Amino acid sequence: MSVSDDMKVSIKGGSLIRKMFEEGNRRRKIYGDDKVFDFSIGNPIFEPPAIVEESLLKLLQSDEKGTHRYMPNPGFPETRRFIADQLLKETKISFTEESIIMTAGAGGAINVILKTLLNPGEEVIVFKPYFTEYDHYIKNFGGTIKKVPTTEAFRFDFDALETALTSNVKVILINSPNNPTGVVYSATELDELDRLLSKKSEEFGNTITLLSDEPYKKIVFDDPAPSVFLHYPNTIVVTSHSKDLALPGERIGYIAISPQHNDAEEVYSGAVIALRILGFVNAPALMQRLIPLVGDQVMDLSIYRKNRDILYEHLTRIGFSCNKPGGAFYLFPKCPIEDDKQFVEAAQELNLLIVPGSAFGGPGYFRLCFCFETEMIERSLPLFTQLAQQYKMIN
Amino acid sequence: MSVSDDMKVSIKGGSLIRKMFEEGNRRRKIYGDDKVFDFSIGNPIFEPPAIVEESLLKLLQSDEKGTHRYMPNPGFPETRRFIADQLLKETKISFTEESIIMTAGAGGAINVILKTLLNPGEEVIVFKPYFTEYDHYIKNFGGTIKKVPTTEAFRFDFDALETALTSNVKVILINSPNNPTGVVYSATELDELDRLLSKKSEEFGNTITLLSDEPYKKIVFDDPAPSVFLHYPNTIVVTSHSKDLALPGERIGYIAISPQHNDAEEVYSGAVIALRILGFVNAPALMQRLIPLVGDQVMDLSIYRKNRDILYEHLTRIGFSCNKPGGAFYLFPKCPIEDDKQFVEAAQELNLLIVPGSAFGGPGYFRLCFCFETEMIERSLPLFTQLAQQYKMIN
Repeated sequence: MSVSDDMKVSIKGGSLIRKMFEEGNRRRKIYGDDKVFDFSIGNPIFEPPAIVEESLLKLLQSDEKGTHRYMPNPGFPETRRFIADQLLKETKISFTEESIIMTAGAGGAINVILKTLLNPGEEVIVFKPYFTEYDHYIKNFGGTIKKVPTTEAFRFDFDALETALTSNVKVILINSPNNPTGVVYSATELDELDRLLSKKSEEFGNTITLLSDEPYKKIVFDDPAPSVFLHYPNTIVVTSHSKDLALPGERIGYIAISPQHNDAEEVYSGAVIALRILGFVNAPALMQRLIPLVGDQVMDLSIYRKNRDILYEHLTRIGFSCNKPGGAFYLFPKCPIEDDKQFVEAAQELNLLIVPGSAFGGPGYFRLCFCFETEMIERSLPLFTQLAQQYKMIN
Repeated sequence: MSVSDDMKVSIKGGSLIRKMFEEGNRRRKIYGDDKVFDFSIGNPIFEPPAIVEESLLKLLQSDEKGTHRYMPNPGFPETRRFIADQLLKETKISFTEESIIMTAGAGGAINVILKTLLNPGEEVIVFKPYFTEYDHYIKNFGGTIKKVPTTEAFRFDFDALETALTSNVKVILINSPNNPTGVVYSATELDELDRLLSKKSEEFGNTITLLSDEPYKKIVFDDPAPSVFLHYPNTIVVTSHSKDLALPGERIGYIAISPQHNDAEEVYSGAVIALRILGFVNAPALMQRLIPLVGDQVMDLSIYRKNRDILYEHLTRIGFSCNKPGGAFYLFPKCPIEDDKQFVEAAQELNLLIVPGSAFGGPGYFRLCFCFETEMIERSLPLFTQLAQQYKMIN
């Protein structure tokens, strides 16, 4: 009788994931922690680079006062200036501290931007498969999600996008490197996206904002991920240091609004208000002070690359069809049967915990996270072989 | 063309406060920092108690891994258990870790609870004067704010409350010790509130939730603030350590749902979902780990008490009518003229920066914050005298 009608529905809907989680715990109890292989959660077990702890200690041991005080609503000016300078260096676009707003992670940042931009009923385009928390973020502010299919290799399908681009579309939400597919959009693809969005913006007399969710930007294995800012002017990037500095629990992220956005100033003012009135007001003080001290450093990526190579090579060798991820730390292979939930249950029986593609709007696939010790991944390989044999993919 | 219609209105509305802020900065430049007395912002300049820095250093220097990792959505179980134990000790009510959800401050916590409870159009009662960010928090989720007057001394007016209590009221939002009045509700008042809410809940066949915003709970000068949990079963408390540990920039707060709430379990499940889908997912990891190490300690209150006494005695001596605050760090005196904005401008001319009561739904009053060095407050007293003379309150 107390919670809202919408929340009642959400509570019911959450039970599938909870059931999976509980089943995992049940299996750990029976078979032992080291016999259950949990590929389901993207919670990196690695430690931040040494400079993070060194810098935090330096901050705490300094005599300076006010380390933990309130800061201006968009965040400490020095931190925002530092980030703006980094972006300026990367893009040669004139970012300033008035382009940057600190936030409690990238998820918080997306909510702030959607709260700033969306009138009820306006549409946000996402590309399947996608991180389905976006459904909630968009619904939080009365927006409507429009899911556009991608090609077989999970790249943009520009014909499908053009069809979906009506005058009611306010935001295009992309995520590159991508969770769950590992796809990194190329400069050529972003140019093509620019052409289409610019054409449609002009046709409708609208500004279509490209909202790019980039927590994995620096987790790349082959080529760097191109800066979206260089390809489309009306771009807003949201990101966090959860992955590149291995600080997922510290909720340190930011919003960067392109100075080339048609309404850059207004969006900035609105986002600062949205941040304030959603109540969580930017990011923790100590972590904001950390950012300029860490500079360009990121966590050691060699272990992710090694994990990707081992898993990718093994899975493709035993018959799984799978894209080689260019970034992030997920594989998204095709299931040998149509029903991904049934396949996930079969894997579970072998103590392999994976997530059905349906949970990402990509039925018929499954997601594997590889942000774990290589040793654990190597020990799991025979079980994947067993699974493939079970489905007659190999003998 | 990019931001939503609602946000456009908010951006326009924000300009008054910005103008005040800019005027303060202009005066600092002309007259010098030490000649401008800024009583407008509740940003404590004091440092956290020594145990905070000691404990943070201990956490960072420990060999334990995973300090900065993701935690379960409601927060680290050890931290929640610690808080539950503290509440159990205070109230003898059987709080457990399943009663506690960590949040990015109390403002974030209120948003999470309102998102959990409100259907569009349902009403939330607040008591005038009040922290007007509540307007936004309630509107964020389609709720309607209902402002109930209080007595001359800013205590509950139970007749006014009874009239306002219709079947459409879902939440009563209180704040004690109060910003801006410093009022601390007594056990007797909370009992009376319980009687009225229980009667109306029964009459309507509804559960009316009492949402108590308590960041100042431990900032009390005379008697302790009674626990709201002991007086009404359907109670949810939100709070943060911004004030009692002087950690306002660290966004460490929590929600505590009374185990006696009619729908305790459902509200807990819903709030964990709301927290997740608003994107900012609980509170920073390092600060969560800090809480159990700090125990019951709070910052030194003697300086606040001294500031309160000096300011209260001086202002009442020179003719201002003012309640003596029992807690928090604000005075809310009556203006000598009806137009509080005009009075605030006159104070500004003397380099006294104060906030008009209208900003709290309390026109005809002004708010003074006293979380600053006593020396600064003492130096400001002659200017208040000059202001009183100007309005012929004294010769």
